[in-house]
Amino acid sequence: MNDEVKCAKPECDRFTAINELARRRGFFWPSFEIYGGSGGFVTYGPLGTRLKQNIEAKLRELFVKKIGIYEMESSVIAPGKVFEASGHVDHFKEPMVECQNCRGRFRADHLLEEKADISSAEAEKMSLTEIKEEIERHGILCPDCGGKFGELQRFLTMFETTIGPYSGAVGYGRPEAAQNIFVEFNRLYTVARERLPFGVIQIGHALRNEISPRQGLIRLREFTIADLEFFFDPQEPCCHLLKEVENEVLPILLCETRLKECEDTTDLTVREALDRKIIRSEWQVFFMAMAKKLLIELGVPAEKQRFIEKLTWEKAHYSSQSFDQEVLVDRWGWIEVSGHAYRTDYDLSCHMKASGVDMSVYKEYANPVEKEELVVKPIMAKLGPVYKNEASKVAALLAKVPVQEVADAMQKQGYFMVENYEIKTDQVDISRQKTIVRGTRFIPHVVEPSFGSDRLFYVALEYAYGIKDNRVVMSFPRSIAPVQVGVYPLMSKDGLDTKASEVQRLLANEGFMVEFDETGSIGRRYARADEAGVQLGITIDYETLSDDTVTIRDRDSWQQVRCAIKDLPKQLHKYFEGKVNFEQLGSIIKS
Amino acid sequence: MNDEVKCAKPECDRFTAINELARRRGFFWPSFEIYGGSGGFVTYGPLGTRLKQNIEAKLRELFVKKIGIYEMESSVIAPGKVFEASGHVDHFKEPMVECQNCRGRFRADHLLEEKADISSAEAEKMSLTEIKEEIERHGILCPDCGGKFGELQRFLTMFETTIGPYSGAVGYGRPEAAQNIFVEFNRLYTVARERLPFGVIQIGHALRNEISPRQGLIRLREFTIADLEFFFDPQEPCCHLLKEVENEVLPILLCETRLKECEDTTDLTVREALDRKIIRSEWQVFFMAMAKKLLIELGVPAEKQRFIEKLTWEKAHYSSQSFDQEVLVDRWGWIEVSGHAYRTDYDLSCHMKASGVDMSVYKEYANPVEKEELVVKPIMAKLGPVYKNEASKVAALLAKVPVQEVADAMQKQGYFMVENYEIKTDQVDISRQKTIVRGTRFIPHVVEPSFGSDRLFYVALEYAYGIKDNRVVMSFPRSIAPVQVGVYPLMSKDGLDTKASEVQRLLANEGFMVEFDETGSIGRRYARADEAGVQLGITIDYETLSDDTVTIRDRDSWQQVRCAIKDLPKQLHKYFEGKVNFEQLGSIIKS
Repeated sequence: MNDEVKCAKPECDRFTAINELARRRGFFWPSFEIYGGSGGFVTYGPLGTRLKQNIEAKLRELFVKKIGIYEMESSVIAPGKVFEASGHVDHFKEPMVECQNCRGRFRADHLLEEKADISSAEAEKMSLTEIKEEIERHGILCPDCGGKFGELQRFLTMFETTIGPYSGAVGYGRPEAAQNIFVEFNRLYTVARERLPFGVIQIGHALRNEISPRQGLIRLREFTIADLEFFFDPQEPCCHLLKEVENEVLPILLCETRLKECEDTTDLTVREALDRKIIRSEWQVFFMAMAKKLLIELGVPAEKQRFIEKLTWEKAHYSSQSFDQEVLVDRWGWIEVSGHAYRTDYDLSCHMKASGVDMSVYKEYANPVEKEELVVKPIMAKLGPVYKNEASKVAALLAKVPVQEVADAMQKQGYFMVENYEIKTDQVDISRQKTIVRGTRFIPHVVEPSFGSDRLFYVALEYAYGIKDNRVVMSFPRSIAPVQVGVYPLMSKDGLDTKASEVQRLLANEGFMVEFDETGSIGRRYARADEAGVQLGITIDYETLSDDTVTIRDRDSWQQVRCAIKDLPKQLHKYFEGKVNFEQLGSIIKS
Repeated sequence: MNDEVKCAKPECDRFTAINELARRRGFFWPSFEIYGGSGGFVTYGPLGTRLKQNIEAKLRELFVKKIGIYEMESSVIAPGKVFEASGHVDHFKEPMVECQNCRGRFRADHLLEEKADISSAEAEKMSLTEIKEEIERHGILCPDCGGKFGELQRFLTMFETTIGPYSGAVGYGRPEAAQNIFVEFNRLYTVARERLPFGVIQIGHALRNEISPRQGLIRLREFTIADLEFFFDPQEPCCHLLKEVENEVLPILLCETRLKECEDTTDLTVREALDRKIIRSEWQVFFMAMAKKLLIELGVPAEKQRFIEKLTWEKAHYSSQSFDQEVLVDRWGWIEVSGHAYRTDYDLSCHMKASGVDMSVYKEYANPVEKEELVVKPIMAKLGPVYKNEASKVAALLAKVPVQEVADAMQKQGYFMVENYEIKTDQVDISRQKTIVRGTRFIPHVVEPSFGSDRLFYVALEYAYGIKDNRVVMSFPRSIAPVQVGVYPLMSKDGLDTKASEVQRLLANEGFMVEFDETGSIGRRYARADEAGVQLGITIDYETLSDDTVTIRDRDSWQQVRCAIKDLPKQLHKYFEGKVNFEQLGSIIKS
């Protein structure tokens, strides 16, 4: 059988080791292998699915349960109009070259990075002509066949389809979950009872039709994204939760440092980053601090995290200021796990313009404001005799012209032309009037933290990976362990198996994720469980039959305690809620 | 504001009432309204997302946690080969007519159902020509413009796209989650440690490019499906869990009854259905009983459920026996909420054939079987001199021919021709030999329960809907209530609001789904909460400040109890785990 525990191979890198373990134990593997595979698609097996769900549950716990962010769920497919308005149809493109010999197609910027040492940040600044020149200058040839490359083009990396039976109805697979939130803003604002600030998160599948995906879980064509759009009044940008994170230190690789071709991060507290105006939005820095906390809870220590400030030409088309949260991994160096963009009112404005639907919100002033305004009133008694039955049309046309324009023309030349009607000074009444303004309409601003679930999953795996006594132990934080409890009868006889089944059922009914294993020696079962990241192992032995106690074993320390079965539910709930430590689960067994 | 509690409108049907409530309170609404909408796509707002997640959590609780079904997660987009092999490209089509005047396109079978009273079961039997004849015979015209219809065609109701930069690489949006499971069978079987039976569930988005979707949540282009594929050895078809459901009664509308144009169901226990051979697979009837239980837990009483046996021409192309679980709803009558198909080895066989990859499994016999076999052995000492250096080639050719054929020829004519070599009787040794066969290979059979998450959601809403004192109360079962606890300070002053925030934080940190509301009178807040299905309301009043107790209010009975804040976490955990009733949460307050 293939589930044998393999010896740890310290000679290979963690990416290789994890991919091997992931396939063998069913964390994940490349999809559609029986059909030769299809790059960029991945299948999460039973252990992986649970781990991924636990990570997504963490996002919900941190954002939905604890700070009251709303969650929504909408469709992966959306009508073309949505992504035309959002700018994706124009901007969501990558430079692509085709080999003239084998017709293989490649990301041109990736080739420059690999073969000419030109960073993707550099390549993003370049025009197609410049990229082509660099490819020729460095003599880059097709990595598959050595052929010469032809012309470059920009390839739209959205999946395109048709909605319904009419060929004209273009639809796209969403490249981000954010647009579903923007297009539904008016309904969401109603649900939020028309009060700002509020946030909405959507966690779901998204699609990017990558030209040539590689790097396993790091670059997928179908992946899970968690986009959180936080709407606030730009005139009231304060974050009332800031105090909770004010002294959190964020290691930031600043633009100014990057432009010196240096990789040193600057440690700044949340407060300092704001005071020094390095991060412009309080909400943005709040979510960055939360993202750091999240990664720590997934097992990535603070010193393996950093934030990188994006250069002007690296930022997405919708962003006014962007930071990427990165985690250091063995094979790939620093990889992005979340992006933090200040999207301003860009998206809502785009959709307002494209749809014609008002998405501004009304704000009542605390104190009504008195405003003096210039007013132009047509004097109908004068217009009437001149324009007859056209008079009211002329008045209506006049009402559409900016008031100042009319006033200026009158003063300068004594008349004003609206279409081909000449309005004279005596035909209008121009005066300054006082009005009481009770409120105003504005478009909310948006700060967006966006997490890649598959990458969070990958870094959680890599940071859980450890070797003990020449065997792999997956030391997940206990709140995300894919299996909470393994239940093992010492032998499959003498009633130990029946008793173990009872314990399994008891714990499953209490809501724990439990696995039962009765195959092989108890040592082999522990080893198999360690490799799968099973947090605790409960062994039913002959002593159990006489005194109803069991042994609980800790995955990481291999320590054991003895606990009464009747106390298990309560004790384990406390343990997994983080209220007690392993040693408090029972009396310690000296080994 | 739009969140005002509306008076219940008993004059409209529940479908209308629920859709109105759903939009107003954010359970769900049609997507992309700002762009004029796009039929068949729906957005779940905050309350709906939580309710839907709770329903999906129930599926996981019943199947994954309690009976050990594995869960997996794979992609919505799959390469064309997958759905060519599965038969979907050939079969997943619907008859479509186009109006010659306005070019509107419609499902022909739906038109027959509405305008000619021909059931969809009938229409499914008909050829395109027959459908066309019926349309003409009944004089059916375009429902939009009254125009005449042109030719019929079968429209492929899968979303089609292209994977990667090559135009030939067709991909489809999956119409079911099942195929992801079948194509990954070999890896899943390894994860299951090469033992049958085992089951795998996938809960995820799926796509059907409906021609003209209507009926709100009932017929969507993008929806969530929960496909559970249960693999077993057809030689060992017994379900070890059958005892738990043996006496469960299933109301079944049998084929024989349906053919008499009668709608009466026959009440059969699980045991009777098997004994009378009405349901052929023990696992299939087990999952049907589980499905009944699930729907009861979602709030649909047994008497509003039935199972309908599918007629031969109604069954999906892969199914040997199918039952649909149906629930009675106000507007639409009986609607399908789950399908139960005996898919046999159809899918694995298709993928084996199309991919060339072996997906059969090996079974070791309990007792090795002795078999007598006819054996033909070439006598090289005789062949050598005749065929010289061709002798071994001749022997190899001979080995490929069925043994019986050689033996028969020898007996009949004294020689055997292999290609153009004549083998004589004395050149081979034909004998019967005994061999020990230790096992066999076979393709597992599959039983599939398949749930439509959006329809489960819809029936949960409809069965929760009730009217009390002329107001809507959404009485969800407590295990799926979208909000578990509402926290309300009696007044937003005198420290009541601060105290209420503390209680909210306490409960949120305990993992409860909590909502805070301090706007409007307490009566209005209760009403708003009842309409949203908030299970319990906790009110912080002046008494709280002196004795640290709060009032807990039940959504359905409007009863109130008084409970100490310090006891809340423990008590509420017990309550939501179903271990205590509302009255046990504290001392009852007489109203």
